[in-house]
Amino acid sequence: MTARTAGIEDATLASEIASRCALARRAARSLGPRERAIKDQALRAIAAGLRARKPEILEQNALDLENARQRGTRGALLDRLALDDKRLEAMAVSVEEVAELPDPVGGIIEQRTLANGIELSRVRVPLGVVAMIYEARPNVTVEASTLCLKSGNAIVLRGGSEALHSNRALAAVIADALEATGLPRDAVQVIPFTDRDAVRVLVQQSETVDLVIPRGGEALIRFVTEHARVPVVQHYKGVCHLYLDAGCDLDMAEKLVVNGKLSRPGVCNALECLLVDEADAARTLPKVAAALLAGGCELRGDERTRALVPEARPATDEDWGTEFLDRVLAVRVVSGLDGALEHIARFGSGHTEAICTKNDANAERFRREVDAACVAVNASTRFHDGGELGLGAEIGIATSRLHWRGPMGLEALTTMKWLLNGSGQTR
Amino acid sequence: MTARTAGIEDATLASEIASRCALARRAARSLGPRERAIKDQALRAIAAGLRARKPEILEQNALDLENARQRGTRGALLDRLALDDKRLEAMAVSVEEVAELPDPVGGIIEQRTLANGIELSRVRVPLGVVAMIYEARPNVTVEASTLCLKSGNAIVLRGGSEALHSNRALAAVIADALEATGLPRDAVQVIPFTDRDAVRVLVQQSETVDLVIPRGGEALIRFVTEHARVPVVQHYKGVCHLYLDAGCDLDMAEKLVVNGKLSRPGVCNALECLLVDEADAARTLPKVAAALLAGGCELRGDERTRALVPEARPATDEDWGTEFLDRVLAVRVVSGLDGALEHIARFGSGHTEAICTKNDANAERFRREVDAACVAVNASTRFHDGGELGLGAEIGIATSRLHWRGPMGLEALTTMKWLLNGSGQTR
Repeated sequence: MTARTAGIEDATLASEIASRCALARRAARSLGPRERAIKDQALRAIAAGLRARKPEILEQNALDLENARQRGTRGALLDRLALDDKRLEAMAVSVEEVAELPDPVGGIIEQRTLANGIELSRVRVPLGVVAMIYEARPNVTVEASTLCLKSGNAIVLRGGSEALHSNRALAAVIADALEATGLPRDAVQVIPFTDRDAVRVLVQQSETVDLVIPRGGEALIRFVTEHARVPVVQHYKGVCHLYLDAGCDLDMAEKLVVNGKLSRPGVCNALECLLVDEADAARTLPKVAAALLAGGCELRGDERTRALVPEARPATDEDWGTEFLDRVLAVRVVSGLDGALEHIARFGSGHTEAICTKNDANAERFRREVDAACVAVNASTRFHDGGELGLGAEIGIATSRLHWRGPMGLEALTTMKWLLNGSGQTR
Repeated sequence: MTARTAGIEDATLASEIASRCALARRAARSLGPRERAIKDQALRAIAAGLRARKPEILEQNALDLENARQRGTRGALLDRLALDDKRLEAMAVSVEEVAELPDPVGGIIEQRTLANGIELSRVRVPLGVVAMIYEARPNVTVEASTLCLKSGNAIVLRGGSEALHSNRALAAVIADALEATGLPRDAVQVIPFTDRDAVRVLVQQSETVDLVIPRGGEALIRFVTEHARVPVVQHYKGVCHLYLDAGCDLDMAEKLVVNGKLSRPGVCNALECLLVDEADAARTLPKVAAALLAGGCELRGDERTRALVPEARPATDEDWGTEFLDRVLAVRVVSGLDGALEHIARFGSGHTEAICTKNDANAERFRREVDAACVAVNASTRFHDGGELGLGAEIGIATSRLHWRGPMGLEALTTMKWLLNGSGQTR
């Protein structure tokens, strides 16, 4: 390709993305003030569309699968891409569940009457246009769209190349349902370009896009943050720790460690590092380690850990702060709560940190001093999840601090508006 | 200067800024979990320091004033820079007022018990490190610092070159007060470089800075947004409209217009454009216009306005959407509420929009459909202000949508943390 052709293509890509975002912005203006009933009606129409148009969706998904196979994709990646009757039905059900959730828009954050008689209320309103950047799994297309629509937002979807046909088919179902309900079909946009250039252009649409949510590996999120002129909610990684305090309930400790590490090692709220108080390690560590080893977990320990658990391999410096996403756990003996807090401050990723303790003062200090989106006392790190915490659904978990932190449900997709109701007051 | 020298200086500047931000980050970690009492004690020590060290502060301020005069600064700009006994006393009093405000940190946003017995609470915690980029007025140094400290945040200050001596003297008083109270003096940092390069480097410290608040002209805010790798709260401009609905109370309309435009024309919540329903313009417009003209206000009207108010000059296309910040008002006759909503959607800046009406349905539609940080019904746009709305103090007004929107008080300087209190629950 000559430089000139590339230039022309870049211009096409940029103007196509800008115009799709502008359509989304216009749709957001008309969608934002709409009542709950019509939004829920549209969500139910989406669920019905997913059921009625299964053959068409599966046909497009088959194209994606065939392309992926030809490119040599195998195993888990192929499985994440694949749709079938059961998965489509699960999607439809989850859309119906979102319809049942309360509408965050119009919710009153605070309400006061000022001394001059002005009635003040601060209410939730939609963010506007949300851009979602994600990979492989086509169900994100439906989940993210329904959460955005329910909260009155338009959405611009930039999925991965491997799922483009599936994503287009799903977005068509959504757009048709919106139109059939009398809502703007432009409220859902699919960006048809799947390279990094498209991401770069998309995250610079500051006139039309209000928020970018990237979902994917750390490299993608760093790329987005680097190029964005639009706010980004980030989820870098989950390096979650559990600290076993001296005197903790040993059965509970074992349950929390095994559940945290082995119930689903590949997710962000899985345990990656166990910290054990030196004062009680001889009692706690061998039993907990035995349960982990019996579950097929590799342990990587510091010297004091290895003195108590000979099966542990020696941990290297890189093991602290690593998100293994696998049946591997780093283990370190620390000098009490201070040592644990110091280790977490240095190596934690601000996602989920937990303590197992019977000591109320230590629990309170841990809650107060650990700086993370979620801090758990005597509970598994695995609970840090929108569904588990009662949000109904989540569009992601934010480990960044601004706007929102932790699991992002419908409320996280809103901003606020200050309403003054007066009778002619002046300053 | 040779390119090589510039390179060396750039490296010094970058490493100096990075190391000051890193100090602030470390201070934030130790300040964040501290109790209200000690933070308030530090604030009172700051107030005492401002009073005790007046001579030293005024001496440094005199240096700034002298430099400014030598560079030809005159009038309002010089006045904004100047400190005196009265202004320092006012600063001290405002610091004491912040000490009296409730501590946002630890405030409970929500609290629930999950079905599995886990007690969930979502609480407010400090943002971390706030970078403030501002110009001329040295009182911002004290206001921004005290709001950040009260909310448990460290602050990095990058003021303008014209106030550097004053800002350093004020920051020294603050740092000494922190130290005397047993809090980390590094929680307040002054960046000693005042060029744009320093701004660019500062807003890219994504490892250590959590939020940037630029205060200044639109060019500064655009520059910051362009280069930032850190979230930015923006306040572009206040193009505030008031719409006079058909049948509105004419005396109220006159009061709101005169107060909105003339009580303080140079501020962001001042009225910049009056919209009048064509159905009632013959009744409302002449009287309101007469009051404005009597107050020395220049009117720039469309043709229909000029037919009713011959004194109005013809408005040009640029007058719609302009922030005059002066005794100038754009006036347009519109086709009812629809016409007003359309005009505001196109030309408003999302700051403050108001309606004067007796019609409840129109008031409700205006509240619902206008997309702005603050929407006022039968009240002056001038009320959109942290002090007026009961926040006690504000660090700025956000017209951006993410994280916060509208007047930013102490609560806007916090983020959240999810706390789980269990008894051994696993998933």
